[in-house]
Amino acid sequence: MKIDHIGIAVKDIEVSSALFSTILNRKPFSFERVESQKLSAVFFKMEDTSFELLEPISSDSPISKFLEKKGEGIHHVALIVDDIKAEMERLKNEGFNPLTQEPYVGANNKLVCFFHPKDTNGVLIELCQHQ
Amino acid sequence: MKIDHIGIAVKDIEVSSALFSTILNRKPFSFERVESQKLSAVFFKMEDTSFELLEPISSDSPISKFLEKKGEGIHHVALIVDDIKAEMERLKNEGFNPLTQEPYVGANNKLVCFFHPKDTNGVLIELCQHQ
Repeated sequence: MKIDHIGIAVKDIEVSSALFSTILNRKPFSFERVESQKLSAVFFKMEDTSFELLEPISSDSPISKFLEKKGEGIHHVALIVDDIKAEMERLKNEGFNPLTQEPYVGANNKLVCFFHPKDTNGVLIELCQHQ
Repeated sequence: MKIDHIGIAVKDIEVSSALFSTILNRKPFSFERVESQKLSAVFFKMEDTSFELLEPISSDSPISKFLEKKGEGIHHVALIVDDIKAEMERLKNEGFNPLTQEPYVGANNKLVCFFHPKDTNGVLIELCQHQ
């Protein structure tokens, strides 16, 4: 298990891509529409981790709700694991609550699931696994 | 420049260390009091990045103010650089505002500085450098 990426909710992904290009002193690595989460994502590669900027493409995207409630800022931390189902099971047995009972396909064609931040010190944690 | 650690503000570092030990499936790596920022810190090593749990040790710690305003959650992302003064200068020239004009000694005896989140999409960014 290691940190895969840090997701940042933004209102305008073009403006924020330019901003983070300046801060991080590098160009974006990839752009993607993630239909399952109703968002556009831009990745900035930082050796073996990344920043992921997230702009909602629909008012019922989870990112829209986050922006309304908290404004722009860090949305989640993703941990990459070898076996997401086994890791979900381990955490469920420890009393944590995944937001979905099964993993689904997220950005970069990874299998993903999220755990509710109320159980994790306010930190929305994503598990992800390469397919 | 790469991601060094993700700082998480917590109310009780013992409770949260036990929680993150379970989530991350590993024991804490180190514990430290950081007098310059009036906090206690526990690190969890994740290959070449870390999670840093932060509990204030004084009511005028920046972490106390964060907990009052936002509650527990991700406080900052730290980027490690080879030359913090050069990087501060680069970002100042791009219009970003460091919270201090000079770097100072933070956790793990690193030189650190922070940039105001109002300029960085709500993300409090720390730069750090090994001494």
